[in-house]
Amino acid sequence: MDMQEDPLRFGLIGTGRIGQVHAASIAANPDTTLAWVADPFVGGAEAVASRHGGRATDSPERLLASGELDAVVVASPTPTHVALIEACLDAGLPVLCEKPIDLDIAKVDALRPKVAASQVPVALGFNQRFDPAFAETRARVAAGEIGEPEHLSIVSRDPGPPPAEYIAVSGGIFRDMTIHDFDMARFFLGDIVEVSATGAQLFDEGAREHGDFDSVVVVLRAASGAIATITNSRRSRIGYDQRLEVVGAEGSLTVSNAPSSLVSVSTARAVEARRPYVEFFLERYATAYAQELAEFVELARGGKSTSPTFEDGRAALVIADAARRSAADGAVVRIDG
Amino acid sequence: MDMQEDPLRFGLIGTGRIGQVHAASIAANPDTTLAWVADPFVGGAEAVASRHGGRATDSPERLLASGELDAVVVASPTPTHVALIEACLDAGLPVLCEKPIDLDIAKVDALRPKVAASQVPVALGFNQRFDPAFAETRARVAAGEIGEPEHLSIVSRDPGPPPAEYIAVSGGIFRDMTIHDFDMARFFLGDIVEVSATGAQLFDEGAREHGDFDSVVVVLRAASGAIATITNSRRSRIGYDQRLEVVGAEGSLTVSNAPSSLVSVSTARAVEARRPYVEFFLERYATAYAQELAEFVELARGGKSTSPTFEDGRAALVIADAARRSAADGAVVRIDG
Amino acid sequence: MDMQEDPLRFGLIGTGRIGQVHAASIAANPDTTLAWVADPFVGGAEAVASRHGGRATDSPERLLASGELDAVVVASPTPTHVALIEACLDAGLPVLCEKPIDLDIAKVDALRPKVAASQVPVALGFNQRFDPAFAETRARVAAGEIGEPEHLSIVSRDPGPPPAEYIAVSGGIFRDMTIHDFDMARFFLGDIVEVSATGAQLFDEGAREHGDFDSVVVVLRAASGAIATITNSRRSRIGYDQRLEVVGAEGSLTVSNAPSSLVSVSTARAVEARRPYVEFFLERYATAYAQELAEFVELARGGKSTSPTFEDGRAALVIADAARRSAADGAVVRIDG
Amino acid sequence: MDMQEDPLRFGLIGTGRIGQVHAASIAANPDTTLAWVADPFVGGAEAVASRHGGRATDSPERLLASGELDAVVVASPTPTHVALIEACLDAGLPVLCEKPIDLDIAKVDALRPKVAASQVPVALGFNQRFDPAFAETRARVAAGEIGEPEHLSIVSRDPGPPPAEYIAVSGGIFRDMTIHDFDMARFFLGDIVEVSATGAQLFDEGAREHGDFDSVVVVLRAASGAIATITNSRRSRIGYDQRLEVVGAEGSLTVSNAPSSLVSVSTARAVEARRPYVEFFLERYATAYAQELAEFVELARGGKSTSPTFEDGRAALVIADAARRSAADGAVVRIDG
Repeated sequence: MDMQEDPLRFGLIGTGRIGQVHAASIAANPDTTLAWVADPFVGGAEAVASRHGGRATDSPERLLASGELDAVVVASPTPTHVALIEACLDAGLPVLCEKPIDLDIAKVDALRPKVAASQVPVALGFNQRFDPAFAETRARVAAGEIGEPEHLSIVSRDPGPPPAEYIAVSGGIFRDMTIHDFDMARFFLGDIVEVSATGAQLFDEGAREHGDFDSVVVVLRAASGAIATITNSRRSRIGYDQRLEVVGAEGSLTVSNAPSSLVSVSTARAVEARRPYVEFFLERYATAYAQELAEFVELARGGKSTSPTFEDGRAALVIADAARRSAADGAVVRIDG
Repeated sequence: MDMQEDPLRFGLIGTGRIGQVHAASIAANPDTTLAWVADPFVGGAEAVASRHGGRATDSPERLLASGELDAVVVASPTPTHVALIEACLDAGLPVLCEKPIDLDIAKVDALRPKVAASQVPVALGFNQRFDPAFAETRARVAAGEIGEPEHLSIVSRDPGPPPAEYIAVSGGIFRDMTIHDFDMARFFLGDIVEVSATGAQLFDEGAREHGDFDSVVVVLRAASGAIATITNSRRSRIGYDQRLEVVGAEGSLTVSNAPSSLVSVSTARAVEARRPYVEFFLERYATAYAQELAEFVELARGGKSTSPTFEDGRAALVIADAARRSAADGAVVRIDG
Repeated sequence: MDMQEDPLRFGLIGTGRIGQVHAASIAANPDTTLAWVADPFVGGAEAVASRHGGRATDSPERLLASGELDAVVVASPTPTHVALIEACLDAGLPVLCEKPIDLDIAKVDALRPKVAASQVPVALGFNQRFDPAFAETRARVAAGEIGEPEHLSIVSRDPGPPPAEYIAVSGGIFRDMTIHDFDMARFFLGDIVEVSATGAQLFDEGAREHGDFDSVVVVLRAASGAIATITNSRRSRIGYDQRLEVVGAEGSLTVSNAPSSLVSVSTARAVEARRPYVEFFLERYATAYAQELAEFVELARGGKSTSPTFEDGRAALVIADAARRSAADGAVVRIDG
Repeated sequence: MDMQEDPLRFGLIGTGRIGQVHAASIAANPDTTLAWVADPFVGGAEAVASRHGGRATDSPERLLASGELDAVVVASPTPTHVALIEACLDAGLPVLCEKPIDLDIAKVDALRPKVAASQVPVALGFNQRFDPAFAETRARVAAGEIGEPEHLSIVSRDPGPPPAEYIAVSGGIFRDMTIHDFDMARFFLGDIVEVSATGAQLFDEGAREHGDFDSVVVVLRAASGAIATITNSRRSRIGYDQRLEVVGAEGSLTVSNAPSSLVSVSTARAVEARRPYVEFFLERYATAYAQELAEFVELARGGKSTSPTFEDGRAALVIADAARRSAADGAVVRIDG
């Protein structure tokens, strides 16, 4: 940014775990300020406002009607996303919405034409696109360093399963957790045309109770012909397990897990033993969240941006739905356009 | 072996690339000697015999009838395996036969009762079971070091595709190449009950010409509930890519690629750069071939042995056939018994 | 800090590279604010104040006399340190002074009794003590994880030599660069009793011109009997080379270089090649500077602190002087008390 | 070797640990056979001969007089080396002698003119020159891959101290253990002109008893200006610790320890933990011993060879003596010619 501009005034809707991350990013970025914070649980809004600035309210409508905003971050529960995106469009406010857009593709498709027709930018919160390691890898793939991609392997294992109540409303592991990886597959390989998913209930009582899987493997075929493999688990004993490998015609690029320390120990029992990897996504993707906001500021200001779009959010959901069907039916599901 | 016994006298049938490996192992092992070598191309047999000992013939029948053998290694082309195993049984000679038993499961099933009824040991050449790293990993899994296995990932990429003529008679990548990984999946996870395979033609003209894949991903479900992912490619620019990871309830065990040197270089362009991995299977699995022979000697002598059996060979072939069908039909294939 | 206290008001003297680092740390720490900034080049003070807060002046005296400070950071040129520490003591202001205290041990010794007699805390800017990796390593050594330390190896190579004008006033590599490592040797091994130093002029014209070395190796013997080896160079092609290894009776702890990315590339030329390490100390020791400030706040508030003391600063200088003599005379120099 | 020649007939003098290694190498190499084995303890000679071939005797003289030899390996106790080398020269037999030539440089110098005047090749058993990793590193340094060498770091730690009786006759750690590293320093940097050594008695009763060190650091200056650091210990809990790093003007080459397995384990306690390194030199340098013999065969046959010479053996001893003096006097020792 060569020209000095006034900081963008943000409204934040939702002050759960992710909402708090966005509040901190907004407060830390010199190009942004937190002007309004809304949460039906107004205590949450007030706590965030007192820490990071802005006025608190229990009403998203009041926030949107304040006339004091340049952009909005939606971090409220998934069922509210579609209506809030629509309200932002109506208010002419660029919006960064957390994933997924909705659990119901029909509601997403109903909103789709309005988004397409609007000049107001809508960005989706696929923060992993902004992780320095993933972004570097994609840029190097694009620069031809390893030739044409042939296979992409994504491993994502969370430290431990969420509470059963979360599972109950999550929309299932494919739409809740794997959706990040579906977006990454598109980020690296472009359009996906075939989905084949395998799920298992191996350890999590909550998943079993709510008919969900705790472990899945998904195989995707891209329009380019390349194949992607996604491995997910709701549990990992070694810390947050986030790895990615792209194998191309001339070599491969690998993203390793993030070490929690530069120290290793060697003894008579074992050598080069390191502490487990960083604990979870707030630590692993801290830089990604900050960069996601920076890119969204560009977008909101009318500049070029690499922010994932509403269409990216929809495409990942389509794949998630296909994976769900594939895992249930034991058959490949084809995706048309 | 506490008691000193006379070396076991071996007959070797087939003197192609693998046959020569077995000849060298037999000559190097103090418990074995090479007594007879047979190959229809008698020049091959003579060359091996002159280097590693024994008499050469163009006739496997003559070898088996020599009365001078204690055991046989069959390393001839696949279509000859069933008849040769049967001949060894008839001759009362323990036999170590290269994989696969046959490309046609019907022929394997026809031989099956005879093998089951015979006292003569039949071992299958799944040499990777004897690789020190894989064997160590399995032993540590069995010892409970990482808890109950939940996911197994096997990556196997050859340095480059074989000639089109080889592809033509190989029985397809699942029965030719992936079969090793199917056996490894059983080695680690036990019985496999579901197979889902995805194949692609990405770079190899020979594969395209003969309706084969050059790249495949196979997802297996074990009776235990654990899931295995196998990733194969006929080409790898970084050397022979042979990795394995078992993730369990308490941690994971990982087998890395074999470095070709202990040296790394760091410059202004890159740090910790190493030479590509060892080139191919003769180098990577040299120790495995020697250990495979040692275990077979135990078996032939009537001792306890970890050698894979005829049933192991059949089971891997059943999975390979299922993978073939799954890749063609786009559906999970269930395996019964 | 359980009780909420008002932020500590800081005066910063000196706004060169390190001064700016401290200014940023003070501004970012919720327990501290920047109240006054002094630099004879008042433009520097004004720039820092406008960015991080506080009032600017060209006069350290005016800063100290403001009556608006709770603590001072001295980051001015080395020859001013002794007088400024003394002025802080007189003003009753806790002071964190950059290393070295002075190039002349006589001036340090002249100040010594006054520091010892004063109740006002004086801390030395040996920031590496606060690096998470070094601090973790020391804590694990102290916890007995590797038994009694026997050998400490410290490698420190800067990306490139400073300008010749800097070398001219630096006091020589031992007092300018190695002094950090001397403090680390004491941090890990306690008192040092023998110093043997070897220096070379291998590549830097500035070092040659001013009779300094660009590459040194120093061997220290601790009172405990343990030996330390320090390897310094003013140039490193691979980025900032900062490694440490403690070998004890039961094993070793190793601090690796900080990778600049989690990505590695493998091709037909090389595998596992990574980008060069992080560039320099601001990046490598960013967390250390923040933690150094946090510990100093504890100290200034009268709490327990691990901040290095004036005596630590003196002891490192004594070793540096000994190293200088050793390198000149080709003999071991003993250190008494 | 393009021309097929008769295998070289070897006499082996001394059948201790190293003698047995040479016997095995000679038996395994198709270009060599073991013809005679001598050891005053004739049982040792007989055991070796019965395992690897040849005739046994208790008399080196008888071996040398047999008229049935083309070359000799001397692996007897150090005090016998000089006389045996001389006897080999008199017998016209190329000789590969274990290090050191003698503990007394005067005896070495007395033999020196005769070696220089003789046409019979004399090679010294500095096997580490033939280690694939060290040899590769030197070749890459020579090829200019990292520019002019500026610093060489050699770490060598044995798994555990030898018996006190061995220490008693070893000539001290510099002549017994560090001598390998002195040769490596010359191998990489050429002539050494200054030696500065520091020794300590930290854990080994045998070393203390016999006035020897169990831990040493030696700093060498090469004629080129480059500096080398050698770190030795008689004990290492992590297995055989053998590392080397050459830092040059454009980058560095690093030789890592040899892993004993490709397997690593990750759990909630630690990640990427590996088994300790290979145990000791027979395992670590197995290939080096075989290659050392192969090069000596070239030399004995009159071809070009990279075998270290008598002069190399003498030069390392001169450095060892200098190190001994330096450690005793606390002063740099200069080496002339």
